[in-house]
Amino acid sequence: MTRVRMSLFISLDGYASTTGSSPENPMGVDWERLTEAYSKTRTFRRLVFGDTSGAGTGGLDDYYAAENVKGIGSEIMGAAMFGLHSFPEDPDWKGWWGDEPPFGTPVYVLTHSVPRSPIPMAGGTTFHFRNVTVQDVLAEATEAAHGLDVRIGGGIRTAREFLRAGLVDQLHLMVAPIVLGRGTQLYDGLQGLELTHSVASQVAESGTIHVTFTRRDQPLFN
Amino acid sequence: MTRVRMSLFISLDGYASTTGSSPENPMGVDWERLTEAYSKTRTFRRLVFGDTSGAGTGGLDDYYAAENVKGIGSEIMGAAMFGLHSFPEDPDWKGWWGDEPPFGTPVYVLTHSVPRSPIPMAGGTTFHFRNVTVQDVLAEATEAAHGLDVRIGGGIRTAREFLRAGLVDQLHLMVAPIVLGRGTQLYDGLQGLELTHSVASQVAESGTIHVTFTRRDQPLFN
Repeated sequence: MTRVRMSLFISLDGYASTTGSSPENPMGVDWERLTEAYSKTRTFRRLVFGDTSGAGTGGLDDYYAAENVKGIGSEIMGAAMFGLHSFPEDPDWKGWWGDEPPFGTPVYVLTHSVPRSPIPMAGGTTFHFRNVTVQDVLAEATEAAHGLDVRIGGGIRTAREFLRAGLVDQLHLMVAPIVLGRGTQLYDGLQGLELTHSVASQVAESGTIHVTFTRRDQPLFN
Repeated sequence: MTRVRMSLFISLDGYASTTGSSPENPMGVDWERLTEAYSKTRTFRRLVFGDTSGAGTGGLDDYYAAENVKGIGSEIMGAAMFGLHSFPEDPDWKGWWGDEPPFGTPVYVLTHSVPRSPIPMAGGTTFHFRNVTVQDVLAEATEAAHGLDVRIGGGIRTAREFLRAGLVDQLHLMVAPIVLGRGTQLYDGLQGLELTHSVASQVAESGTIHVTFTRRDQPLFN
């Protein structure tokens, strides 16, 4: 059965951040610090740079990085994560994920802007643009996943919409051991998430705390 | 050399809480959930109930509970934690820590109310009341500690005053795996704490995440 999965980078104080984002630095000034441990992993290097030499860190950070890309049949992301806001007037802009984006599945981009045609890319990724509710795009992505899982890619605002609507079966947090003090609070509006989802944590060699919320088969409260 | 140590209960979203506190329930309605794992430990049962039967949980929660009371020479706490706010008009009120409080050291209670005489209790605890700055009370508590450590007991507002003033050498957080969504945010004003303090985390069998900030010998930034 298709599950809805999500993996996010936050700080100890619960902030995901796109503070200070620009066309050149679309993820913002804190992104590098939030993703430092992940970007050193073997799996990241393979997925993003095509580095198959085995260079990069192993251990728990790499374990989670590898798990997060397994069994994904389709992806949903916000317009900012695609990069739509960087060049909103350019109909030929194909996002900032490069010629061969690391998805290899249909990717549904939520946007309120004018309709765009699908963009097929090398490596099996096709970007589709949708101006619909989170429920509707999830229904379409679930069908496209053919029994595999749907991943909500982000960014943080898109992620929170799905979380607040109770649509996420597994939420994996990579908590960087830093106190950021700015950005978007992941936890706002998620009070009591532990009642519907069980919580398990592990600490990686890098100091990153991996916290996983998994929907309980039998919710304690309805 | 005397170190300044502190140990706090917070939720995954960074809240310490005295929400809904009353004379009968001075720590508030969420306190039990925040301290659930700690209150089951062997060490807590021994300290608070005098239970020396060995009943209670062991493991990491108990390890930290035991470490937190080792080598403490004096304690500082806020008026609310002593219980001063519960019966402010009663000069004979000796706080809600019982006849034999689990400190066994001088305890400095910060208060803006009228001066009170020291209260000596069974077991070596003496409560002193001070209306002075955090720096001044720390100087007095350090002298009273005779080379042992000073513990900042809380509550959260008192703790934050010492943290924001840069006076804490070791901050231990017991992060309960719950999303509380209300209370007092520990992390407000602590942005960049990882620059002056190194961070190490461990996950206990209960799911509690123990996060310890320890002042770096050589601060990266001044």
